[in-house]
Amino acid sequence: MLKYAMIGGGPGAFVGAVHRRALMLNGQAKLVAGCFSRDLEKSHAIGAELGLNEDRLYATPEEMARLEAGDIDFAVVVTSNEAHYPNVKSCLEHGIHVMCDKPFTHTSAQAAELVELARSKGLTLGVTYTYAGYPMVRQMKEMIARGDIGEIRFINCEYPQGWLAEMLEATGHIQASWRADPARSGGVLSLGDVGTHVEYLVPHVTGLKLTRLAARLDTLVPGRQLDDNGTILTEYDSGARGMYWYSQAATGMVNGLTLRIFGSEGGLEWHQEDPDHLRHMPLGQPARTIVRGTPDLTPGAQAFSHTPPGHPEGWLLAFANIYTNFCNTIAHGAAPDFPTGEDGLRGVQFIETCLESSRNDTTWIQL
Amino acid sequence: MLKYAMIGGGPGAFVGAVHRRALMLNGQAKLVAGCFSRDLEKSHAIGAELGLNEDRLYATPEEMARLEAGDIDFAVVVTSNEAHYPNVKSCLEHGIHVMCDKPFTHTSAQAAELVELARSKGLTLGVTYTYAGYPMVRQMKEMIARGDIGEIRFINCEYPQGWLAEMLEATGHIQASWRADPARSGGVLSLGDVGTHVEYLVPHVTGLKLTRLAARLDTLVPGRQLDDNGTILTEYDSGARGMYWYSQAATGMVNGLTLRIFGSEGGLEWHQEDPDHLRHMPLGQPARTIVRGTPDLTPGAQAFSHTPPGHPEGWLLAFANIYTNFCNTIAHGAAPDFPTGEDGLRGVQFIETCLESSRNDTTWIQL
Amino acid sequence: MLKYAMIGGGPGAFVGAVHRRALMLNGQAKLVAGCFSRDLEKSHAIGAELGLNEDRLYATPEEMARLEAGDIDFAVVVTSNEAHYPNVKSCLEHGIHVMCDKPFTHTSAQAAELVELARSKGLTLGVTYTYAGYPMVRQMKEMIARGDIGEIRFINCEYPQGWLAEMLEATGHIQASWRADPARSGGVLSLGDVGTHVEYLVPHVTGLKLTRLAARLDTLVPGRQLDDNGTILTEYDSGARGMYWYSQAATGMVNGLTLRIFGSEGGLEWHQEDPDHLRHMPLGQPARTIVRGTPDLTPGAQAFSHTPPGHPEGWLLAFANIYTNFCNTIAHGAAPDFPTGEDGLRGVQFIETCLESSRNDTTWIQL
Amino acid sequence: MLKYAMIGGGPGAFVGAVHRRALMLNGQAKLVAGCFSRDLEKSHAIGAELGLNEDRLYATPEEMARLEAGDIDFAVVVTSNEAHYPNVKSCLEHGIHVMCDKPFTHTSAQAAELVELARSKGLTLGVTYTYAGYPMVRQMKEMIARGDIGEIRFINCEYPQGWLAEMLEATGHIQASWRADPARSGGVLSLGDVGTHVEYLVPHVTGLKLTRLAARLDTLVPGRQLDDNGTILTEYDSGARGMYWYSQAATGMVNGLTLRIFGSEGGLEWHQEDPDHLRHMPLGQPARTIVRGTPDLTPGAQAFSHTPPGHPEGWLLAFANIYTNFCNTIAHGAAPDFPTGEDGLRGVQFIETCLESSRNDTTWIQL
Repeated sequence: MLKYAMIGGGPGAFVGAVHRRALMLNGQAKLVAGCFSRDLEKSHAIGAELGLNEDRLYATPEEMARLEAGDIDFAVVVTSNEAHYPNVKSCLEHGIHVMCDKPFTHTSAQAAELVELARSKGLTLGVTYTYAGYPMVRQMKEMIARGDIGEIRFINCEYPQGWLAEMLEATGHIQASWRADPARSGGVLSLGDVGTHVEYLVPHVTGLKLTRLAARLDTLVPGRQLDDNGTILTEYDSGARGMYWYSQAATGMVNGLTLRIFGSEGGLEWHQEDPDHLRHMPLGQPARTIVRGTPDLTPGAQAFSHTPPGHPEGWLLAFANIYTNFCNTIAHGAAPDFPTGEDGLRGVQFIETCLESSRNDTTWIQL
Repeated sequence: MLKYAMIGGGPGAFVGAVHRRALMLNGQAKLVAGCFSRDLEKSHAIGAELGLNEDRLYATPEEMARLEAGDIDFAVVVTSNEAHYPNVKSCLEHGIHVMCDKPFTHTSAQAAELVELARSKGLTLGVTYTYAGYPMVRQMKEMIARGDIGEIRFINCEYPQGWLAEMLEATGHIQASWRADPARSGGVLSLGDVGTHVEYLVPHVTGLKLTRLAARLDTLVPGRQLDDNGTILTEYDSGARGMYWYSQAATGMVNGLTLRIFGSEGGLEWHQEDPDHLRHMPLGQPARTIVRGTPDLTPGAQAFSHTPPGHPEGWLLAFANIYTNFCNTIAHGAAPDFPTGEDGLRGVQFIETCLESSRNDTTWIQL
Repeated sequence: MLKYAMIGGGPGAFVGAVHRRALMLNGQAKLVAGCFSRDLEKSHAIGAELGLNEDRLYATPEEMARLEAGDIDFAVVVTSNEAHYPNVKSCLEHGIHVMCDKPFTHTSAQAAELVELARSKGLTLGVTYTYAGYPMVRQMKEMIARGDIGEIRFINCEYPQGWLAEMLEATGHIQASWRADPARSGGVLSLGDVGTHVEYLVPHVTGLKLTRLAARLDTLVPGRQLDDNGTILTEYDSGARGMYWYSQAATGMVNGLTLRIFGSEGGLEWHQEDPDHLRHMPLGQPARTIVRGTPDLTPGAQAFSHTPPGHPEGWLLAFANIYTNFCNTIAHGAAPDFPTGEDGLRGVQFIETCLESSRNDTTWIQL
Repeated sequence: MLKYAMIGGGPGAFVGAVHRRALMLNGQAKLVAGCFSRDLEKSHAIGAELGLNEDRLYATPEEMARLEAGDIDFAVVVTSNEAHYPNVKSCLEHGIHVMCDKPFTHTSAQAAELVELARSKGLTLGVTYTYAGYPMVRQMKEMIARGDIGEIRFINCEYPQGWLAEMLEATGHIQASWRADPARSGGVLSLGDVGTHVEYLVPHVTGLKLTRLAARLDTLVPGRQLDDNGTILTEYDSGARGMYWYSQAATGMVNGLTLRIFGSEGGLEWHQEDPDHLRHMPLGQPARTIVRGTPDLTPGAQAFSHTPPGHPEGWLLAFANIYTNFCNTIAHGAAPDFPTGEDGLRGVQFIETCLESSRNDTTWIQL
């Protein structure tokens, strides 16, 4: 059983509990230490709740990394965005493998530094682009790889949410406040929060490399300082084209990540809110609905599938699958099959490029 | 009962029969004359089938307009695109009201000339942007007008089809061949065929005016000469923003016109393939499904609704509703409440602007 | 062009206009005479609206049958249920073919008499079980006939509506009042109004013969005199079994006719509110969605399909398809391929059997 | 942290792992001992995988109960059905609280004995009717309790699966084999496996008591010995009526548990395969879709909800919620708010009553 520590994930930070539960589901790693909050008392409260020893709860991430080095196998960084960089750095410097929440860092320089640091020390560095852990996302990846839809021609990936259709950041709402604060979120709001999921997902699933983009970032809600909506035109190394739309101001949308891929031999359509089903549209034939858990799954999708068909899995198990592969790399030296630091770096570069394009009236920029 | 003549709508041209059936459903107008084909024999064959007198079947549209002037109330022009301009012109010159299929003409100069001609002669000129005839489209229009979703912020309108994912124009397919032929279709393929529906629908429903756009037109199917896919970023006079996607190469999509509108107080979502339902997402409340035929309809939607709730209407009745309003204008002088020549002109200008933007690497162009 | 007269279909009787529109869509028959109401003035008003000559509007159906015999090809009977029997009888006695609304008659003795009368006079007698006119219903019928789902094992057919979840008949609501009045509706309310559609549809689609049933009829809304809900267990000649549920008191349901058929090699699922799609579930393979208008249709479904895929057809076109086949029989002697008087008779026997079973505590009764 | 032991859940028995994961997700209880298989070696293999001490792995459930009494807080019984009774009994006799899989026992006499044993010893006894753990099931229960849909009139609950549409039990399929074996499953196949979920769910959600039923059990697949399909007419203490349909031979259905409840003021509709959404149809208003995780949830549903809206939960978390309430009773003396032994007993009585009714040609039987 691997041992891990958590940085962040204190009260009000729901995603910390999600990472802990995902790791429970795997049964591969055990939480043994933490620095859950900048406020040690809060850390103690949570640590107690989780059954940790008080002497393994720390005032700062740096202290934790220093004192736990050798006693833990990896650290999980789930703080707000601005603290990702120093925390990951501390861990890596002390020789600790790290899984970090997304978006990875504020700047691509920071991300590149961390990637290089991990590389030079032979450490494993992951970034939790969770949606890659869904079985049917893996199914799309493997169907495309084996040619089921032919040559990819066009990709439409959208991720609309509606929870920031109001100025929640003006009401003291914890999740909204740090995300909408330019200093803490890295210069973008929704592009970092949801847009980066799109950025990661498309090449992950298609095997294509994004080569050029033109972006328009919007601030739809009056009074807001950062983007809450954006449209991005894309081009890939194969010549395929695409379009991304992300939003957190799409009133009434919940968590509508949707990926549609059109190829010369067929199309694929997947909705995150109904993750166990995949629509496959073979050219000239009726569309088919592939169901998670059935023999129609590709091997990798099967490996990510845990309950029988029709017994819905969900977001937590997608998280768990990411961690399973991460733990397999740490514990058994398996080739990395999860979103890595390099992916995180590419995500930050994507954000920077979109910002530059948008500031230049949606000009095309080569990546 | 009004009397009308049809130009075009011969064998293989399915849309002619659609117009005729739509007019039957209304019961306001009776077909009395026609020039269904460039080939008089084919015209005779169809005319006989439809019970028309042989002496009211003509070799050319011009001849028909000349000889039928005074005996018919209006003409319906349903030829392939390149013939819209001369045919509509003939009719107007002979004082005949006209309903023309979309896209209106090849060039905006032609469209402007026809609009001016109709205006100067006091004639009624309509363009069949059919989707405006759906009850739930009218419902959206009226809900927005009365403020149900507040200030509009973002519009996402897409219209993907997949039937041109193969090079059908290389196989002699009638519908594909003229649409994909630069000389006959007006310099665009799918932008004219489906993109213009999007162009018309958005301002019709929202009351907004498109002020600026940036477009990328794509040719996804190798060997094709014209666009079969396109993405257009938009801006409106109110400051609202939007995004259009159209395609006829989206493998597996059928006729997926979808309109989503996000405002400060709510959102709306409508799918043309399920036309009798409208999803209304009031801010902070559960989404509601409004069903055609129920007392939840606005007055104009109610007027367009003909069968009880749950007894599906469809595309033909949407067509019929357009014609009902057109006939009311001709017969009773009702204020035009259907897509007009001006709308058709705006549609052609839209096509030209998209082409220009796309040729200039998606540059923004003011309208 | 055939000529027809209508009996019933006056003001407030929406179904008359539906029959007229369906016949317009066909273009095979023209309305020339009518007795639209017991009140001649109302008949005159409607006749004028429809452009009929006043001397072909009649005070009684009998008078109309007598005076129009020889001048019309068929009559359409769309009165309330209690008047079906005398009106159909008048027409047949005067040698006029008849299409009658469902449920056919109040008693099976009446129905048998009419069937025999038509037979002895060589007249065509139809009953508008409209749903048989949907292309995808025909698709199911033909897929089953060619063995696509193997041996049928179980059928679940339901038809819930909710519009009688309130005591509308106590408010003077026209449609509710005669349906809920024991004297006018034939001793049943919802069993006649919606249950009979189920009764017709199942053998029509499956080719099976109902041999035994056990029924429980319910009156769910307090104060109502007749059934507004019912459950029927069924058995067929092949040994297959089934279950019907109908309701008009299922609060919130609209017009939810749904047919699911399970066989040894696959299953089928069709929803009337989404009539252009059929779910086919081949054993051990992903479910497929067959779309109206595509080459995946069987020949008979193709013949019923009029607009391109994704351009929704609807209820009126289903009606029109029934009439097309009826007219083909009258005009061209085609073998009857529409619901006939025999089907109507079987429907009345079904009602009587369900009532008897229900009164005997859901006892099984052989048919 | 509570300590628990597991009986059953060895290789090939997927449900054991599900129970273990559900308990991990809670974080309230830790697995410390087990008798996973009749074969001690297999138990050792699984125990090792789970990190248990070998001296806490036992050859028989009885031995385990005897030696672990005092050291564990509760036992989880997840063997095949025939072993539920002796295993639960052993545990209770040694003073151990028990959670048992469903269906509870083979006979109601056995169930009654276990319930009495638990009562007399003051022990907590639960039965995992998992679906009660879904947030939106709780939502329905609480909406009904507060009167949102008025007086309940009719309930339609169905649970079709298709995985036994073939004779899997003839192929050595583990899950199919013991379920289809009369000796091991308790005289029923699908009625016990899926029908009992329906039986539990309806009174749980509605608060109604089943008073009378008439059942027809079917064996649809030739060669099978037990029921694989069934229809049950129901009546409740309030006078409300209902209908259940369960199947494991409904070719192409996956795990389609669906509950629809119709009341005087509204209707509710919930599909297990889309568990995070609930359709609420208020009388005379548009249907609303209530989404898990939003402020529209009732308090109990909110307590069962763990991830943000649009981040799908699933079956495992429903399981976890059942265990949370079970553990709260054991650890903190909370009033039982989970399916109890009494519920299990009622489930077995339901099976016996259905069998009796079906053997007597669907006669009504009072409960």
